[in-house]
Amino acid sequence: MSADTALSGKPQEAAADAPVLLSERRPDGVAVLTLNRPRAYNALSEELLAALTAELESLAADESLRCLVLAANGKAFCAGHDLKQMRSRPEQDYYRSLFASCSRMMQAIVALPVPVIARVQGMATAAGCQLVATCDLAVADEEARFATSGINAGLFCSTPAVALTRNVPIKPAFEMLVTGDFIPASEAWRLGLINRAVPAAFLDAAVEELVGKILSKSPVAVRTGKRMVYEQLQRGLADAYGYASEVMACNMMAEDAGEGIDAFIEKRHAVWKGR
Amino acid sequence: MSADTALSGKPQEAAADAPVLLSERRPDGVAVLTLNRPRAYNALSEELLAALTAELESLAADESLRCLVLAANGKAFCAGHDLKQMRSRPEQDYYRSLFASCSRMMQAIVALPVPVIARVQGMATAAGCQLVATCDLAVADEEARFATSGINAGLFCSTPAVALTRNVPIKPAFEMLVTGDFIPASEAWRLGLINRAVPAAFLDAAVEELVGKILSKSPVAVRTGKRMVYEQLQRGLADAYGYASEVMACNMMAEDAGEGIDAFIEKRHAVWKGR
Amino acid sequence: MSADTALSGKPQEAAADAPVLLSERRPDGVAVLTLNRPRAYNALSEELLAALTAELESLAADESLRCLVLAANGKAFCAGHDLKQMRSRPEQDYYRSLFASCSRMMQAIVALPVPVIARVQGMATAAGCQLVATCDLAVADEEARFATSGINAGLFCSTPAVALTRNVPIKPAFEMLVTGDFIPASEAWRLGLINRAVPAAFLDAAVEELVGKILSKSPVAVRTGKRMVYEQLQRGLADAYGYASEVMACNMMAEDAGEGIDAFIEKRHAVWKGR
Repeated sequence: MSADTALSGKPQEAAADAPVLLSERRPDGVAVLTLNRPRAYNALSEELLAALTAELESLAADESLRCLVLAANGKAFCAGHDLKQMRSRPEQDYYRSLFASCSRMMQAIVALPVPVIARVQGMATAAGCQLVATCDLAVADEEARFATSGINAGLFCSTPAVALTRNVPIKPAFEMLVTGDFIPASEAWRLGLINRAVPAAFLDAAVEELVGKILSKSPVAVRTGKRMVYEQLQRGLADAYGYASEVMACNMMAEDAGEGIDAFIEKRHAVWKGR
Repeated sequence: MSADTALSGKPQEAAADAPVLLSERRPDGVAVLTLNRPRAYNALSEELLAALTAELESLAADESLRCLVLAANGKAFCAGHDLKQMRSRPEQDYYRSLFASCSRMMQAIVALPVPVIARVQGMATAAGCQLVATCDLAVADEEARFATSGINAGLFCSTPAVALTRNVPIKPAFEMLVTGDFIPASEAWRLGLINRAVPAAFLDAAVEELVGKILSKSPVAVRTGKRMVYEQLQRGLADAYGYASEVMACNMMAEDAGEGIDAFIEKRHAVWKGR
Repeated sequence: MSADTALSGKPQEAAADAPVLLSERRPDGVAVLTLNRPRAYNALSEELLAALTAELESLAADESLRCLVLAANGKAFCAGHDLKQMRSRPEQDYYRSLFASCSRMMQAIVALPVPVIARVQGMATAAGCQLVATCDLAVADEEARFATSGINAGLFCSTPAVALTRNVPIKPAFEMLVTGDFIPASEAWRLGLINRAVPAAFLDAAVEELVGKILSKSPVAVRTGKRMVYEQLQRGLADAYGYASEVMACNMMAEDAGEGIDAFIEKRHAVWKGR
């Protein structure tokens, strides 16, 4: 994983001409996108947002993709928007376009057909905390801290609130949003913002354990499932069941479901065809 | 309770001609439905689904019903769909009809006018976990385990996801769905999937304690409440309040509300008329 | 804070002609509304509901308001509706009007442009528990207890359920509603009904700590945020993001956002203009 030096204590100094986003495509079907502005705490500059969106849209068309890990170089996972860049163009149309771009990137994570795992170290603030909330799964260094801190700069974390309030109960979410206070990884776990908090030395292992589990499943079943989970949540109960029943009937016609059920009945390992 | 031998260690051997669902109607207004395919871990065969739906629809018309306990014989609560039966008819229309039937049964639990309590031992997987999530209340043996394990057989638990994501925060729900991993009863409690986990020896007592509390309330108030809770959840805030205000005004006109409030003011026990 | 004698052990005896609601407007922009029917455990009589609604509607127009604390005199925070008063007019139209009034008051808390903090001692039951659930933030004495106890008087807590189920996961919420059982402050915290539980001696300090944090933020950012949080929750994901992006672009055009970001960049304290 290209983020393996992220927690070395000394922020990785990306050269001025280093790409703001590193993209690795492993032979096992896993992609790793690594935010690479460590000196700026991986703030989501226009360039980084554009690079993320382009990679996500490209990966969405990659039919052999199985899983995406979203990582970050340096001491912090992501500090949110690039405030210096934002201040340099005080025009409402610019901001409208900027937040729309950021929201498109976040929704591209939700729309990506495979699970996205956030690998979080240091801190995740504002749109960085939103990134964690938006990923399907999140594993954090137990020393990591989380905040929707825009309020401290006079800018309520409105777009982060969309993701946060869909992960965390409303009262603690409101408190985070209005106080800007950090919560530790243990509290982020308790509230449902992350799936686990582990010692820094085990962060990559914990991410790879989740990756390995996903890789061991039928690709068609995983893709079917990710899409349906979020779609059904937006529907009423009867409608959600109608949709889910149809999805499940389709899933049953996949070769992998036949093989998987046969393997289960015969007490052997399934061999997935991916269709 | 007909499930009282369920945890004896040795699965109860139901005779080949034993009914797949046992139905008991106690004189105190409590019905107990007991899944009775212990050798098949109470898998929801077509026959069992049909029997459950028929009983639920019949109970829905029983005006003296106060509470339903959903129990299961044998070592496991319910292992989900009957995979062997499913594999024997690989036709999309058959699956469509099967999942629609199962979804209708689940919604019949929600639509039943009285509270439904799941009594859970052993394991509850896939549609069995969905059954637990769908019941209004759930009490489990502290050794019980829960999983949405269809993903291991190439079949994402899409219909179970509808119920699970309405009980459990999205990140842990997504993890259960995509990994198929078991969670212990303590974690199911922490996440809101069950109301309590107790030692096996106290499982029936814990269920009966909840039953007893429900029986001590006004039948009309309990029925009014169950229906409104789920209905209002599907509405926006203003609409939910409009609906709830009307429901509460109707409830106040019931004889039981007058008696209950008078009893409260007079510091005596209320005597419910059930209307 | 006018509730500072609330936990003295001896209920404050409000004189017969004392106002049912005390209103304080502090020079720092904080308003404190104190329920003042201690001998009636601050039951929400028609008079108290009307006084609360009038104050909330008046405060909504107060542009220098920064935060509202909702407190209560005496041993209990609030015992819900005034049952004696309710029983004296057994007419459905009266109840319809009463619950509509109460629901309007609750929604006026949500609609108030600034954060509302509940300061909870003793007990909060039925519509009193709903008040806690409805406030944006809640701090409780660790000895406080919470219940939706209408069911014990034959009256299911339907309007409280609207607020409760938007704070607390559905299974524990259903259990509270159907059993009427009290939960301690520690459980209310675990479930998300309150933000903290503290020893009685520190209750005011804990409230003031939250107040102080809110006062240290930009008024325009806090007001922007409160409104958007609840509004976006009622929308689907794409629509919520469209709305939040627009809100955030507007927020960026406020003088305070420019000042706040400049202060952050310059590592100094921001000086808010409130616009």
